Amino acid sequence: MTFATDTSVAAAGDGRFETEIRPGWDIGGNANGGYLLCLAARAMSETAKRPDPVTITAHYLAPGRPGPATVLTEAVKRGRTFTTVSAALEAHGRRLLQVVGTFGDVVDPGGGDARAVERVEATPPALPPPDECVAVRPGDDFPPPFMGRVDLRLHPDDAGFSQGAPSGEPLVRGWFRLRDGEPIDTLGLLLAVDAFPPTAFNARLPVAWTPTVELTAHVRARPGPGWLRCAFTTRFVTGGFLEEDGEVWDGTGRLVAQSRQLALIPRS
Amino acid sequence: MTFATDTSVAAAGDGRFETEIRPGWDIGGNANGGYLLCLAARAMSETAKRPDPVTITAHYLAPGRPGPATVLTEAVKRGRTFTTVSAALEAHGRRLLQVVGTFGDVVDPGGGDARAVERVEATPPALPPPDECVAVRPGDDFPPPFMGRVDLRLHPDDAGFSQGAPSGEPLVRGWFRLRDGEPIDTLGLLLAVDAFPPTAFNARLPVAWTPTVELTAHVRARPGPGWLRCAFTTRFVTGGFLEEDGEVWDGTGRLVAQSRQLALIPRS
Repeated sequence: MTFATDTSVAAAGDGRFETEIRPGWDIGGNANGGYLLCLAARAMSETAKRPDPVTITAHYLAPGRPGPATVLTEAVKRGRTFTTVSAALEAHGRRLLQVVGTFGDVVDPGGGDARAVERVEATPPALPPPDECVAVRPGDDFPPPFMGRVDLRLHPDDAGFSQGAPSGEPLVRGWFRLRDGEPIDTLGLLLAVDAFPPTAFNARLPVAWTPTVELTAHVRARPGPGWLRCAFTTRFVTGGFLEEDGEVWDGTGRLVAQSRQLALIPRS
Repeated sequence: MTFATDTSVAAAGDGRFETEIRPGWDIGGNANGGYLLCLAARAMSETAKRPDPVTITAHYLAPGRPGPATVLTEAVKRGRTFTTVSAALEAHGRRLLQVVGTFGDVVDPGGGDARAVERVEATPPALPPPDECVAVRPGDDFPPPFMGRVDLRLHPDDAGFSQGAPSGEPLVRGWFRLRDGEPIDTLGLLLAVDAFPPTAFNARLPVAWTPTVELTAHVRARPGPGWLRCAFTTRFVTGGFLEEDGEVWDGTGRLVAQSRQLALIPRS
């Protein structure tokens, strides 16, 4: 239960939670952004007393390294269906993330027959079976240690960047699960939406990384067991920024999360 | 200068700003969500001492009616390029919006040659000239009073819903400008992304409204003068929610803003 234990938080009263940025979740020494968001979201969910981050946004202020961390939460509205929580993740004497999220219960959101209205204009990404995709294993330096915490299998057409043969398209598709078959809850979806290599690697952009300014995720459903199908695309690289849009589908063919992040094209 | 004056805020010290939800910006008695966001964003921009909301997210907690209002702001990080601000809009003794935004200067974001990297995978929506589109004029009840504050011209193919003939597609395209040719700045883009009729009206969903839970906008550039081209689409109506994705392009054919909101399918 690596994910559950490595994102656990301990209530310390007055909306404050003590936690720790655990080692092994880093990319080049800095903790993965989705992992940091999970630390904040778990504390926010406890404050909200509701399980699912229906919509959550994090602004990334500073990188995080392993060590003690604190989440400061404030419930700004407790409603009949949702609770909205403002939060900050702090470590190393700095604020790392500023977060706002609305929590609810996506299995019974109180929508009554509203849930019966369904219309989906898209299909899950077509992927070869996981064993025919390209497994991303952590290396000494690249792929990063974080890849030892998750199980990523990239679509072969989207995996060439690591061999110096990017596809040329700003698209990354693949399977995601936690290691050792650990079940994934809706907080785990926040990890999935920031776990894949950036689309910029395939788009042949002249960048070594695209730091996240802000990430928003919408959780639509609790995922069923097994692999998640994921796809990330970018349509606009302009003005020094790019967006990366993500979709996560579960094994039953149901959309479980959507995400969008704004990332920076670093100065070269 | 209706928009500028109707979104003005007055600093009251310690990050607090006094303002007013002005009459005429409402839809069915409740102020338009984009307009409320503009009140918060103008105060946040002053606190940030930076002009442009590079990325901003609002969670909608309660509806707002005309009357005095307060914006409470806190700069949570002042960096070399960006300032991130957390804020709340309060009125009628209630918190209406919880907001977080990162402000910068989109004309000179400090990106150096990063701005030279451009790749755009989309084109502005094709629209007949504004005079050949369907003007949305405020009525006694419908269209709402808000439509007197902006100048909306809907694509004829997307305007039939008001005559009981929705297109069947979750798509709304049209031109946007402020009344009387008032110039539009990047705060005004936050109005544009929430000014159009909901895609649900064209998708023939059995709803009279789709209340916004959360709206995120990314501002990529300051718009040039004149009409803005806008398009709003929905791909996923599931679990009692739908997302609405927006794009705003200026007269030079440049993407100036992207938006996504999560909205609720109300119980019927």
